[in-house]
Amino acid sequence: MSNQDQAPQQGTFETGGGAALDTALAYHRAWTSHDFDRAMTYIAEDIVCQAPAGRLDGTAAFRGFMGPFAQILTRSSLIAAFGDDEKAVVMYDTDTVPVKDAPGAECVTVRGGKITHMRIVFDRLPFEEARRAAGTG
Amino acid sequence: MSNQDQAPQQGTFETGGGAALDTALAYHRAWTSHDFDRAMTYIAEDIVCQAPAGRLDGTAAFRGFMGPFAQILTRSSLIAAFGDDEKAVVMYDTDTVPVKDAPGAECVTVRGGKITHMRIVFDRLPFEEARRAAGTG
Repeated sequence: MSNQDQAPQQGTFETGGGAALDTALAYHRAWTSHDFDRAMTYIAEDIVCQAPAGRLDGTAAFRGFMGPFAQILTRSSLIAAFGDDEKAVVMYDTDTVPVKDAPGAECVTVRGGKITHMRIVFDRLPFEEARRAAGTG
Repeated sequence: MSNQDQAPQQGTFETGGGAALDTALAYHRAWTSHDFDRAMTYIAEDIVCQAPAGRLDGTAAFRGFMGPFAQILTRSSLIAAFGDDEKAVVMYDTDTVPVKDAPGAECVTVRGGKITHMRIVFDRLPFEEARRAAGTG
């Protein structure tokens, strides 16, 4: 996908598009459709991911963090997605096996079609509470 | 502002701008500079705010939620801000009195220069842990 020469779309959730937004959305569509191997094709080898629990360096650490989350996903919907050629922000809602209505937001930096940096924000509290309730936390 | 016929701006944190982004950023600048009364001028009377702990209806409930947070803020920086004429997403990092490095993300809908809907995502877990450590949780 390459829509950086087009005017931004209006009236949709995906506006002000650019190359980074294309990559962010391709990654998003892949992992939310349970194709995590395809999702990883959009992740740079040396990705730096700032997650709520701390910094993750490289694809192995990133896969160890996002892979299990993708597996417990039961529903997702896009709330908003904006970006330009270098950076994009995607906000989405999810239902997961332990927690319903668990939104997340990602700000990604993209170079050469790969996500080199991701800042991801979500609320860990309901997941922590679900773990405790299940007696595994 | 009405720039839907312009190409998105490139290479800054504030890109693909529109009226909703202007309002989102004006609100953001006000509350992060501890001028919460000014921040509230950008909030619609009948705002619906979907926060991690649940839905808040109207300015009084919204003020009761965001006002105390603005008071404990010690530092903030903008991570990304994008939007069009109707919707914007702002991601930022904050330090607060109980918790350092507490990022948040807001997706706002704007009508007539006022925020009518806000979806806000942040990690409640470190705040919960800080409350527990202080013996007040």
